[in-house]
Amino acid sequence: MLRIGILGCGRIGQVHARSIKALDGAEVVAVADAIPTAAQTLAATTGAEVRDVEAILTASDVDAVIIGTPTDSHFSQIMGAAKAGKAIFCEKPVDMSVENIRICMAAVQAADVPFMTGFNRRFDPNFAALRARLRAGDIGAVELVTITSRDPSPPPVSYIARSGGLFRDMMIHDFDMARFLMGEEFIRLHAMGSALVDPEIGAAGDVDTAAVILTTTSGRICQISNSRRASYGYDQRIEVHGQRGMLRAENQLESTVEIATDAGFRRDPAQHFFLERYEAAYLAEMRAFVAAVTGDAQTGPGIEDGLRAQMLADAATLSRESGQPVDLPLD
Amino acid sequence: MLRIGILGCGRIGQVHARSIKALDGAEVVAVADAIPTAAQTLAATTGAEVRDVEAILTASDVDAVIIGTPTDSHFSQIMGAAKAGKAIFCEKPVDMSVENIRICMAAVQAADVPFMTGFNRRFDPNFAALRARLRAGDIGAVELVTITSRDPSPPPVSYIARSGGLFRDMMIHDFDMARFLMGEEFIRLHAMGSALVDPEIGAAGDVDTAAVILTTTSGRICQISNSRRASYGYDQRIEVHGQRGMLRAENQLESTVEIATDAGFRRDPAQHFFLERYEAAYLAEMRAFVAAVTGDAQTGPGIEDGLRAQMLADAATLSRESGQPVDLPLD
Amino acid sequence: MLRIGILGCGRIGQVHARSIKALDGAEVVAVADAIPTAAQTLAATTGAEVRDVEAILTASDVDAVIIGTPTDSHFSQIMGAAKAGKAIFCEKPVDMSVENIRICMAAVQAADVPFMTGFNRRFDPNFAALRARLRAGDIGAVELVTITSRDPSPPPVSYIARSGGLFRDMMIHDFDMARFLMGEEFIRLHAMGSALVDPEIGAAGDVDTAAVILTTTSGRICQISNSRRASYGYDQRIEVHGQRGMLRAENQLESTVEIATDAGFRRDPAQHFFLERYEAAYLAEMRAFVAAVTGDAQTGPGIEDGLRAQMLADAATLSRESGQPVDLPLD
Amino acid sequence: MLRIGILGCGRIGQVHARSIKALDGAEVVAVADAIPTAAQTLAATTGAEVRDVEAILTASDVDAVIIGTPTDSHFSQIMGAAKAGKAIFCEKPVDMSVENIRICMAAVQAADVPFMTGFNRRFDPNFAALRARLRAGDIGAVELVTITSRDPSPPPVSYIARSGGLFRDMMIHDFDMARFLMGEEFIRLHAMGSALVDPEIGAAGDVDTAAVILTTTSGRICQISNSRRASYGYDQRIEVHGQRGMLRAENQLESTVEIATDAGFRRDPAQHFFLERYEAAYLAEMRAFVAAVTGDAQTGPGIEDGLRAQMLADAATLSRESGQPVDLPLD
Repeated sequence: MLRIGILGCGRIGQVHARSIKALDGAEVVAVADAIPTAAQTLAATTGAEVRDVEAILTASDVDAVIIGTPTDSHFSQIMGAAKAGKAIFCEKPVDMSVENIRICMAAVQAADVPFMTGFNRRFDPNFAALRARLRAGDIGAVELVTITSRDPSPPPVSYIARSGGLFRDMMIHDFDMARFLMGEEFIRLHAMGSALVDPEIGAAGDVDTAAVILTTTSGRICQISNSRRASYGYDQRIEVHGQRGMLRAENQLESTVEIATDAGFRRDPAQHFFLERYEAAYLAEMRAFVAAVTGDAQTGPGIEDGLRAQMLADAATLSRESGQPVDLPLD
Repeated sequence: MLRIGILGCGRIGQVHARSIKALDGAEVVAVADAIPTAAQTLAATTGAEVRDVEAILTASDVDAVIIGTPTDSHFSQIMGAAKAGKAIFCEKPVDMSVENIRICMAAVQAADVPFMTGFNRRFDPNFAALRARLRAGDIGAVELVTITSRDPSPPPVSYIARSGGLFRDMMIHDFDMARFLMGEEFIRLHAMGSALVDPEIGAAGDVDTAAVILTTTSGRICQISNSRRASYGYDQRIEVHGQRGMLRAENQLESTVEIATDAGFRRDPAQHFFLERYEAAYLAEMRAFVAAVTGDAQTGPGIEDGLRAQMLADAATLSRESGQPVDLPLD
Repeated sequence: MLRIGILGCGRIGQVHARSIKALDGAEVVAVADAIPTAAQTLAATTGAEVRDVEAILTASDVDAVIIGTPTDSHFSQIMGAAKAGKAIFCEKPVDMSVENIRICMAAVQAADVPFMTGFNRRFDPNFAALRARLRAGDIGAVELVTITSRDPSPPPVSYIARSGGLFRDMMIHDFDMARFLMGEEFIRLHAMGSALVDPEIGAAGDVDTAAVILTTTSGRICQISNSRRASYGYDQRIEVHGQRGMLRAENQLESTVEIATDAGFRRDPAQHFFLERYEAAYLAEMRAFVAAVTGDAQTGPGIEDGLRAQMLADAATLSRESGQPVDLPLD
Repeated sequence: MLRIGILGCGRIGQVHARSIKALDGAEVVAVADAIPTAAQTLAATTGAEVRDVEAILTASDVDAVIIGTPTDSHFSQIMGAAKAGKAIFCEKPVDMSVENIRICMAAVQAADVPFMTGFNRRFDPNFAALRARLRAGDIGAVELVTITSRDPSPPPVSYIARSGGLFRDMMIHDFDMARFLMGEEFIRLHAMGSALVDPEIGAAGDVDTAAVILTTTSGRICQISNSRRASYGYDQRIEVHGQRGMLRAENQLESTVEIATDAGFRRDPAQHFFLERYEAAYLAEMRAFVAAVTGDAQTGPGIEDGLRAQMLADAATLSRESGQPVDLPLD
């Protein structure tokens, strides 16, 4: 039985707690949150104890921690957990600073603890099935990847102001997906973006509509588009072209019901947002983490994946601001 | 160059004239209609002469006739054309009386003239492709056929009163399609029907909503449903289940455009009615007739197909009125 | 906290136990099965005690029972549970004998205990959404209902021989769905069926492919087709035509992934069978049962629904055997 | 009756001739081609005379010319036709040189003759319907346009070598479509491309897989991707996001037939290539040209549209070669 401590009892901490409840082989033993009532509520639901972060990081009855606190707490919590030899699951982004991520990566490697970055979309059953076919060679070598990702509506401008910007806050998921699908690193990128949804977002120095082109060493191409608005639900689609054909994953709609009237044939909106759309992904993600820590499987996206996605997000931010393409280090 | 005379210059006669114009190897040389202006209009469009029916049937410069006159004229025109050795294309139904169709059939066989019954749906590219795959064995032996056929809106009650009823006027096409797909004759049938769209239709002794089950000698089953109303366009669908899977043909929509809004994902209505939906079918049908008469191909549905569909329509009418199943002659 | 005893620890008992675990407000306190290891396994998973059926029926710490035993045990267990004042959830069919169901119904009514029949499909989110729109009047009054239900592959012939036949074992779900959608009782029915999938099924006196037409007092029509075989997964579809349009619910596929190659555009098979397809339905069903018993909601399908579906199944069996339509009591 | 001369009797000249045959109000009176048999064949089909280009340009019985000759002949033929006061329909590209197009534009404007550039996709019924809804405000102001355009297989390398490259030969259609949909000029563009389909294409200095991002003055974004290969047919899709939703046009498949087997649900490939996919578009295009010349309607895409698309193609070519974004003149 893997004993887990949850750091951060907000929305995502609650999602992971619910997943752990549904899994065999893991249990939440302790939870921590800066807001006492948040911790108490999650403790009541899970049967775990409320403790403070430091106590969880050093507890002898905790094997692994899930870090779902605000981004600026990740660094010290990762460093503490690594030092204490705990397995670590950390929500994206690992840190806003690539330098800090490198420091965490060194600590994690030195401590030799399992580490998984919360790129939940890799575990979406549709996207996972698409990638499995890609790796199985169903369409041959990849040539062009197109990722569409649109939120139903923008977050408050106050959130955006401290989010690191669209590329680091939202498109980072798509950068990870692009790497996951492409299987080859990107070497060049050009980003364009505008504030078309809400001028306040532009006034805050960010964009709400963006498109990026990326190329790899061997000349494969990826297109990513993002928007903070989609009236028809959370728009999450992938299309991959290869030598022998195309693989694509469409949105999950609210139901399979279709109504036909004189206005035509109408199906439901896409599932509203990430909690609905990625419900199965969150469960599969936590199952993968538990399996990896207990030795039954390799971990999913590691800290290096967190690093590389952040580097792409930084590069896109720079490209959008400068209006110029950005070359990426090959390592 | 096949020289054709058109008897009946109404909507369907005009459709066939347009098809012939688009084909190589055939031309309309004469047209006839009880309404002189109708004949003159079609003559002007086609460059053909206006003649009377008798003159066309006996003309030495006419190789084939297309009979698109009211049903009660078909008998004498078929008999006349057969006697004169003309190839014959006759709209469905061949005749309201099975006895009369048998007489025509004997005359046609005695004269050894090509005869094609206007079951246009056999030539719809979608349905033809479906059947080709069925015959190619793509899903193995047929087990269950489901045909859905709904008109956008009912014709005038005055039309219905002299139409022979829904089973003879509308479902006759589906009976032919059922035979075309099944490749085996039906031996038993049960029809149910109601006047749900318009009570006036019920008052006229007919139904506007109906469903029929049929079985063949070897126990294969067919379901047909009809309605005189479909708000979303002309609903024409086929679904065939076989040993190894299913083949189905969906409706053709007005365009491939989809709009996504907060109401969901909406596609266009189905093409409005038969002139739009079966435009390609009418052209393919006439091409097949010309090819058959000029010796390049076998004819499509013959007079026996017209006979058998009429027998099924009669049986369904009887079944619906009696509330009992009806057994069909095996011949 | 509703305290539940589970009678029958086979596949369906396990499904309900898992649903209860995921719900707040209910717990499994005792389980019983004729096979001791089956009971022990489920007890271990749920933390419940193994007891015998009689002990559960009379236990003071059990508020409700879930009856998932073989059909021939239902009668005595329902009678016992009613006598003891327990709320009852009973899998379909309530009993093979309509007479027995009437006796149970009287006992349940006399004891005034909540009773729910396990017609899980009413709780499928797609079908439930379809019906909600129907009741909301989105397509006006119902005219024609078409239900397609195909299992992926037939059960063993040994199972079929004691199943009561396709109409009672399989189509009973569709009869309930037809009533659920139609909102009006059926008065006449004609069933046709054949053994096309496996001649052994025919030799056992049953059919594996069947179609039924039913009509209601006001002349509305329902078509149901069933097959014991569908290569492309569990085929569960509904189509309802009304005055103003059509509502239909398509199958749930294994994923949203589509592959396009020179063979065309291919999507996944339908979810394999009922455990996958109706996973959400089973959870919603149990939630509804708990809510009904604890007084927050009306129960779903009651014992009378179980009775009426059985009557339709009996009528269809008779119709198929006699080759004649069967009239149903109006009550 | 508009009297038309066709210059160039290759594939596209034949397409236009067939369209004119199907239209009322226009006829082909003369045809010319550098290959005598090509001209003779088209003359035989249309009933037109074979003449040389110069004779057609100056003929008193020719009102309009269709220029479907090789690109390097366009300039002199446009200049000649303008001088002779003929209405002009010219295939894309108007000329490989923007300078030459400007000279033609001046000549056309001076002569005040109708001019239409052969951007046939504007007349595709699906794309035209999409744009009509966009202009009607169905999704509000445009924010992001995504165009996917893939040929089934690459042309011979010998063709590619003299084609001007993918951006001028193939993507030029998408640039025109982007302008058509956006309703606002582009001011900046970045193109990336690779030779992934065939290294010979790379050796010839061209690419076969490319993606471009463009932005307009007000910050709207367009993504275009092209490939010379698509195993599943000619891939021609458009997706437009606006304030209130999305409009998209999917491919036209070869039929509506779907087959379901244990491999899943399979639909037909997309229509093979432009002759099939744009058959209706070519007819609508010619209808629009005839209507415009005979005064019943405005012309479609004019010479300035040809100019601007060529400027975008030049800019994309430069961007791909330099690896840098290119700013476009605002005028």
